[in-house]
Amino acid sequence: MTSTTPSGFTKPKGFKANGLWCGIKKSRPDLALMISEVPAVAAAVFTKSSIKAAPLIVSQKHIRNGSIQAIITNSGNANCFTGRFGRIYAEKTTELIGNLLNISKNDVFVLSTGIIGKPLPYSKIENSGKKLVNGLSKGGGRKAAKAILTTDLALKESSSSFNLNGHKITIGGCAKGSGMVAPNMATMLAHLSTDCNISSKMLKIAMKKASEHSFNCITVDGCMSTNDTAVILANGLAGNPKITKPGPAFDKFYSALEKVCFDLAKMMVLDGEGATKFIEITVNKAKSVKQAKDIGLMIANSVLVKTAAFGSNPNWGRVAAAVGSLGIASITEENLKIKFSSFKKKNIKIDVQLNIGQATSTVFTSDLSYEYVRINGAYN
Amino acid sequence: MTSTTPSGFTKPKGFKANGLWCGIKKSRPDLALMISEVPAVAAAVFTKSSIKAAPLIVSQKHIRNGSIQAIITNSGNANCFTGRFGRIYAEKTTELIGNLLNISKNDVFVLSTGIIGKPLPYSKIENSGKKLVNGLSKGGGRKAAKAILTTDLALKESSSSFNLNGHKITIGGCAKGSGMVAPNMATMLAHLSTDCNISSKMLKIAMKKASEHSFNCITVDGCMSTNDTAVILANGLAGNPKITKPGPAFDKFYSALEKVCFDLAKMMVLDGEGATKFIEITVNKAKSVKQAKDIGLMIANSVLVKTAAFGSNPNWGRVAAAVGSLGIASITEENLKIKFSSFKKKNIKIDVQLNIGQATSTVFTSDLSYEYVRINGAYN
Repeated sequence: MTSTTPSGFTKPKGFKANGLWCGIKKSRPDLALMISEVPAVAAAVFTKSSIKAAPLIVSQKHIRNGSIQAIITNSGNANCFTGRFGRIYAEKTTELIGNLLNISKNDVFVLSTGIIGKPLPYSKIENSGKKLVNGLSKGGGRKAAKAILTTDLALKESSSSFNLNGHKITIGGCAKGSGMVAPNMATMLAHLSTDCNISSKMLKIAMKKASEHSFNCITVDGCMSTNDTAVILANGLAGNPKITKPGPAFDKFYSALEKVCFDLAKMMVLDGEGATKFIEITVNKAKSVKQAKDIGLMIANSVLVKTAAFGSNPNWGRVAAAVGSLGIASITEENLKIKFSSFKKKNIKIDVQLNIGQATSTVFTSDLSYEYVRINGAYN
Repeated sequence: MTSTTPSGFTKPKGFKANGLWCGIKKSRPDLALMISEVPAVAAAVFTKSSIKAAPLIVSQKHIRNGSIQAIITNSGNANCFTGRFGRIYAEKTTELIGNLLNISKNDVFVLSTGIIGKPLPYSKIENSGKKLVNGLSKGGGRKAAKAILTTDLALKESSSSFNLNGHKITIGGCAKGSGMVAPNMATMLAHLSTDCNISSKMLKIAMKKASEHSFNCITVDGCMSTNDTAVILANGLAGNPKITKPGPAFDKFYSALEKVCFDLAKMMVLDGEGATKFIEITVNKAKSVKQAKDIGLMIANSVLVKTAAFGSNPNWGRVAAAVGSLGIASITEENLKIKFSSFKKKNIKIDVQLNIGQATSTVFTSDLSYEYVRINGAYN
């Protein structure tokens, strides 16, 4: 792959990126810039944790008007639990990039991932800003995808295209996630781009729903991080008639977006520390989608289920214990049905029928192996 | 220790017990009977899981009038997910013991622990009933304590005495806990006895509170089982003036009961599969005790915190992530304070200050080791 081949975030028309090493990490790339060549509408979803890192608070402010043109992301330092300087450095980072790109700092989105509780070495970002901007290119998607990684074993890029009345529309993206090695946070970051012409309102609806069906359906550790974020920029350069309301055009866009988000989410699970299995848990016939998802996540976060998967043991008692743990009175021995695919395979399916309603939800997780304990416990 | 020395359940006046092998397990003891020689008032707490095993449903019915004289417990089979025969066999077990002891079946409490989803081999219990009853003795406490174990590595007995106006009052008990080896459930069973003269109402109040402060404050797997139960019989043979209301006498009784329950709970945690550390998590300055406890349990069930403890890594970021995960808006970076004792020691203390209220709660757990993964995953 040459440096001129667009990939991930730079696949859609009018997006450029770059990634380099600025010195936050010891030797690996740690600073990424991803931009649209023209102003773009934007939507983002943030961690539901009550403890939000400084860059998220700045980015939440900047995206409020629905437009973002550049995303600056550093790895190696989460800029979390860093006191009032955390906020100041996050602000300064957006100013720096805004000035260099000649756009408003309010159109710059800032993200951080890595170690917590240590001051962000802002001067390193400042010193590399010019080089970062000068190196922006269509082929820089992969460089950016590499620079956002922390303990990830593999880079995570995906893209999807579809035709809308003769216009080719592409969605691309890169992500990092979601393993945690102390004192890093298990942060999940997704950077998405599209050349689709779509209203801010419909982009928000699509992004929120696609996140719910992908990033919010996966769990490795059962903990949200202070930095989890997924953001999408839409620059309209595909030239399609603007999508402004629900309908077939929106549905096509949504399907492609969900596919890219789901691809990235699946890569995060499979990159889970020491993961040897991919576990798909579907909860059927629940009272509501929320109930189905809550139960799915309870099963997915059960260390007993996760170790059983690692040991290739189809143990329905552990699944039943997780379901019962929620204490939902209508779920009893009589109406609960549990089915498994073979636990010997790399992909495991667990199917739970509650028989108290009509709603369904599917969640995804990995198993819990010796390697997980080694990485997360015995690393010093 | 000879067979005539009272221990655990048989320490208080007027209690006898026996334990033997009836053939449910391959070779180890699997049937225990614990009785009061005279009618007793009783109180019990049951799993909050919506899925309750058959014996619990029968026992809930029998304890409704506040009196129980005998507890029959089998290990090796949980009699859960066993359809309508589960209930029938649990009923028949209480009839069998009632007839042999010449008491009403309604004064017999029945418990089961072990494998789920397989029919209870009731005929084995039936065939051993007479021998079990004939072997009842003051020295049989230890035999009973052994016969209730499943994957436990050690037997769990405790007792405590105090003086009330010249009357010596004793509380005793034995327990099994709380590891789960497939397809067993992580069942926690506690059998308690006292010769205290106390009203049914005050016994219930004491038992509920003591359980909240002991058994309900520990977590190994984060899952409740379908069979979790703690039960206490009080036969009044100490001869003290009856405790019928709150006051100094009740407070003395409660302290001793809490001590015994806490002893047994701590033994369960330390017997957690592969546990190498005992972790005490105190959440201070919360809005309510419930909030403090919910947050404590979130930390205690975090596999990231548990593996960090195993690896002797004092990682406050993981604790912060667990706290933030609950999404309680008032808990932010600014007001959250986390302190640790040394992670190198066997006993670890984690102290969390929320600074949003005045309530406190303490919970207990074990670490997550390679051995845990081996026992729970790679056992076949």
